Amino acid sequence: MADQDYDHTKVNLHGHWASPFSCRVLWALSLKGIPYVYIEEDLRNKSKLLLQYNPVHKKIPVLVHGGKPICESMIIMEYIDEKWPHKPLLPKDPYARALARFWVKFAEDKGPSIWMVYRTTGEEQEKSKKESLEMLRTIEEYCRINADKKFFGGDEIGILDIAFGGMIVHWYDIIEEIVGVKLFEAQEFPRLHEWVNNFKQVPVIKENLPDRDELLAFFKSAREKLLASP
Amino acid sequence: MADQDYDHTKVNLHGHWASPFSCRVLWALSLKGIPYVYIEEDLRNKSKLLLQYNPVHKKIPVLVHGGKPICESMIIMEYIDEKWPHKPLLPKDPYARALARFWVKFAEDKGPSIWMVYRTTGEEQEKSKKESLEMLRTIEEYCRINADKKFFGGDEIGILDIAFGGMIVHWYDIIEEIVGVKLFEAQEFPRLHEWVNNFKQVPVIKENLPDRDELLAFFKSAREKLLASP
Repeated sequence: MADQDYDHTKVNLHGHWASPFSCRVLWALSLKGIPYVYIEEDLRNKSKLLLQYNPVHKKIPVLVHGGKPICESMIIMEYIDEKWPHKPLLPKDPYARALARFWVKFAEDKGPSIWMVYRTTGEEQEKSKKESLEMLRTIEEYCRINADKKFFGGDEIGILDIAFGGMIVHWYDIIEEIVGVKLFEAQEFPRLHEWVNNFKQVPVIKENLPDRDELLAFFKSAREKLLASP
Repeated sequence: MADQDYDHTKVNLHGHWASPFSCRVLWALSLKGIPYVYIEEDLRNKSKLLLQYNPVHKKIPVLVHGGKPICESMIIMEYIDEKWPHKPLLPKDPYARALARFWVKFAEDKGPSIWMVYRTTGEEQEKSKKESLEMLRTIEEYCRINADKKFFGGDEIGILDIAFGGMIVHWYDIIEEIVGVKLFEAQEFPRLHEWVNNFKQVPVIKENLPDRDELLAFFKSAREKLLASP
């Protein structure tokens, strides 16, 4: 999209269809019913606008609202929730908010382990598998404490569901399939599997989740290129 | 401190005197004038209460308020700001809040590079030095945009000053001295050096900053043990 075509009065989202981080923002905007213009980025040839709006990381997603860019998917979540407070993503109580943020940070810090399983081989991959399993076990344990709730956010999807959704739903089992490993066993993680099923059934999520086969083909091909590069 | 001596009606902070993460919380509580009970943890023999209150990471700092634990220094910041809104640490405007959170996340993600300089040697250390320099350059660039302000938070210390304070002030130059390297040169980072000076002069910070010589001795000895261990 050329700069002159850009409508700064609208909510613009620079994203990539296969990115879980992009999806997090799509889900939040859709859950709240906020109209937006979606700009698909070519990650090998990023737009001038993306580079201008996220000069530090040069990464999607970037939400541009009133001409001002907000970067980092989970920071965009808090912005969206403060700007459009209906159908809240975060709880109201400060302690419940701190707890949600603790687990969001956990997802941000530990989530990359599964992507390291995807990006590496050999010893490094084995280490990442262990880290990823530990992460799943910790989340399963947390699910156990909250076993009476349908979602991490309670009866409705909240910020933590979106954070975990952008890690576990689709992307996790696609990576497992590509790498040829099974970490996220239903037997070991019954509550987390139940949550995945609940989450995927929510219409707004279902409608804004990339096609599994297309994702699989995309990440399979991307990994081949990645491992072939020097 | 034994469990029976613990006063759950008070604000309790489990910390360690030499930890920048602990200091962040001390600074925030002191800036707002919130009375608290400080519990010094022996990091080689953590208290039962600490392990109970932070079972996921088993780390300080943990703030316990009304018997409920909040973990992770920068999440504690947001909790403190929501619970005691006077002398705000975060700006009010959602966009300004998103910007502050973006840089807090940057500090959290990139800050460990200087600790890697401390913890490693050889090739790994060289890589961390480069990453740490890149981090400083990015922050200096950000300072340049905000050159008219005394602090990142404006005229008063805000959440981002506390985040950067727990990285750059004291700890950074102590690590440089121990490792025998100079990365944070005043010539290359004039604005960041100016900010460090402004920050250290604030009475609440000065009174709650560990003694530089004691910090130096502590981290020097800890590094020797670290590198001697198999």
